[in-house]
Amino acid sequence: MGKRKLPYRSALAAAARGLNEELQKERGRRCVVASVKLISIGSFCLATIMSLVNSAISAEEPVPPPSGQKKIAFAIHGGAGTIDRSTMTPERERAYHAGLERAVMAGYEILKSGGASLDAVEAAVRVLEDDPLFNAGKGAVFTSAGTNELDASIMNGKTLAAGAVAGVKRIKSPINLARMVMEKSPHVMIAGDGAEAFAKEMGVELVDPKYFFTEERWQALEKLKAEKKETPVSDKDRHGTVGAVALDQAGNLAAATSTGGMTNKRVGRIGDAPVIGAGTYADNRTCAVSATGDGEYFIRVGVARDVSSALEYQNASLGDAAQRTIDKVGQLGGTGGLIAVDKNGNIAMPFNTSGMYRAHISPDGKTVVEIYK
Amino acid sequence: MGKRKLPYRSALAAAARGLNEELQKERGRRCVVASVKLISIGSFCLATIMSLVNSAISAEEPVPPPSGQKKIAFAIHGGAGTIDRSTMTPERERAYHAGLERAVMAGYEILKSGGASLDAVEAAVRVLEDDPLFNAGKGAVFTSAGTNELDASIMNGKTLAAGAVAGVKRIKSPINLARMVMEKSPHVMIAGDGAEAFAKEMGVELVDPKYFFTEERWQALEKLKAEKKETPVSDKDRHGTVGAVALDQAGNLAAATSTGGMTNKRVGRIGDAPVIGAGTYADNRTCAVSATGDGEYFIRVGVARDVSSALEYQNASLGDAAQRTIDKVGQLGGTGGLIAVDKNGNIAMPFNTSGMYRAHISPDGKTVVEIYK
Repeated sequence: MGKRKLPYRSALAAAARGLNEELQKERGRRCVVASVKLISIGSFCLATIMSLVNSAISAEEPVPPPSGQKKIAFAIHGGAGTIDRSTMTPERERAYHAGLERAVMAGYEILKSGGASLDAVEAAVRVLEDDPLFNAGKGAVFTSAGTNELDASIMNGKTLAAGAVAGVKRIKSPINLARMVMEKSPHVMIAGDGAEAFAKEMGVELVDPKYFFTEERWQALEKLKAEKKETPVSDKDRHGTVGAVALDQAGNLAAATSTGGMTNKRVGRIGDAPVIGAGTYADNRTCAVSATGDGEYFIRVGVARDVSSALEYQNASLGDAAQRTIDKVGQLGGTGGLIAVDKNGNIAMPFNTSGMYRAHISPDGKTVVEIYK
Repeated sequence: MGKRKLPYRSALAAAARGLNEELQKERGRRCVVASVKLISIGSFCLATIMSLVNSAISAEEPVPPPSGQKKIAFAIHGGAGTIDRSTMTPERERAYHAGLERAVMAGYEILKSGGASLDAVEAAVRVLEDDPLFNAGKGAVFTSAGTNELDASIMNGKTLAAGAVAGVKRIKSPINLARMVMEKSPHVMIAGDGAEAFAKEMGVELVDPKYFFTEERWQALEKLKAEKKETPVSDKDRHGTVGAVALDQAGNLAAATSTGGMTNKRVGRIGDAPVIGAGTYADNRTCAVSATGDGEYFIRVGVARDVSSALEYQNASLGDAAQRTIDKVGQLGGTGGLIAVDKNGNIAMPFNTSGMYRAHISPDGKTVVEIYK
């Protein structure tokens, strides 16, 4: 945790604990999974309705300001990829929903009470890092060497300050360390042992690398190794990068992204998550973006920065800009998605995979959790 | 060198050797240092002429195509920063000129003979990496731990393929390894020991870290440590990142950047040089960019990608876009510069420091080497 004194930090912890218990009971009830309800409808209607649903997703109206408050907006993702309904049990789906809802509420509570977008995105990402279901923190995937190497980055849209860590092996919350790099060092990006040395100086407790062992991720590695695959093209077993974007009452945007990378990745491989401009970008004049998918393609396109640039230079709408950027990734052969919120509180969440674990706050202040297209 | 068979590679080596000898004799003669000649002119004339010189620099016309050839363009830099005339001896200045001229000719020869922009930028950067005067390869600066950690990246504007290495300690030519990451791995960015393991697999000979020891860089570290500075704001003792941008006869753009980072940097710190979108970007539809300066600011602004985006989304001229991006860096408090070439062969080389080691090929095919504003 370090020794920083941040507003809302302890309030958040308490809120997150309380919500956790409450939400365990409510699992699944309030979750909105539009696609599930649509499956039984004929193909003509399906196409029409999906189109409406998609436009709703890609141009979500901002949350109206409660009396006396300015508008806020918040969205998170838990990774995009091939999410197969046939292998998804109801129990597992409920668990994903619960995890996403805990995370989105952790950030939303901060924003509602007047907290900073930076605190909201960090809080939500930490909840997802601690959840073994998602490929970040505790649930990180394994490298080809059977180790876990975690990456994360965070950006402050007000100052363009940014922090990132890459290839850390003993940091429970990489997003927290990325924030320390941003706020407590003269650097933006620190990798490997150097990042862990910095963590020690900051008083961050290093965890035993065994903390990151999960049977499911280990089996994914074994399976990939048996298939002798070392390719960034397939998106199986890798849909788990997490991220959050927020607009707070002060009009400040922030974005955060954290990941374990891709299963069976080469030791030392750095994906898009810790690369400012690729996996993460935030600029109060435009938008905040967190991306997830085939990291290599996202770096080449410069995904997060590309969305921001379209707003900056072309005055494009957030929905159009975000969709066009994901289309660019698709044209190169890459898959994935992104979440974005602009300075007016609009939200966009395009992806070109069969699903993206995601949640946001609807204009009437409800949490909306979705998985499939 | 690895085992890749690349066209023009051996021709380049021979050409570089020959040029080296010839240019040693010609040192200084053909070099153009506009500012030196301007010093004795009154301030009114100086301002007027400098303005003309600057516009020539920021909007250099493309090299006209020799009969039957399509146009080509080529520029390199050896870093921007506080370059103090008072501490620059004539001998030292001549050595910088000679080094820059060797590098720009190494790339230009390749382009003239119909070679690829990727080969040209790699060749020029390798010449600079081997020259102890520049902060890349042999002349890399020292980290706070007294080690050398090198970063480099390269990008192919035709395919948007990219490769980068970060924090390598035993790689003689980081730009060569970055190219291998691009062409021989499924990844874009590999750091530290993982990058060196990849190098071994590629048959790249690892050098003893002592190879990177130079007395001058060691003294710079000692001096900074004595002053107890650990800040990315001052640009002293760090003006040495190198890079190249090229347009070849086939209309393909490429960019390459290589660096030892900043003196006294924290172990594991990654600057902008290996970050695609910050230090390096190339896209045939827009331009190729290589940046140099306070890496942290360049990452936050997303310098290389920002220039490209202004061309893509706003149809801005290269000179305007490049200058505006450097102005953004300056507004945040950062210093440095960039070199860029667009798809039409225009060249821009703006910087906000007192100097930038740089060279390009003029419209009439001459090498132009410059240091000061």
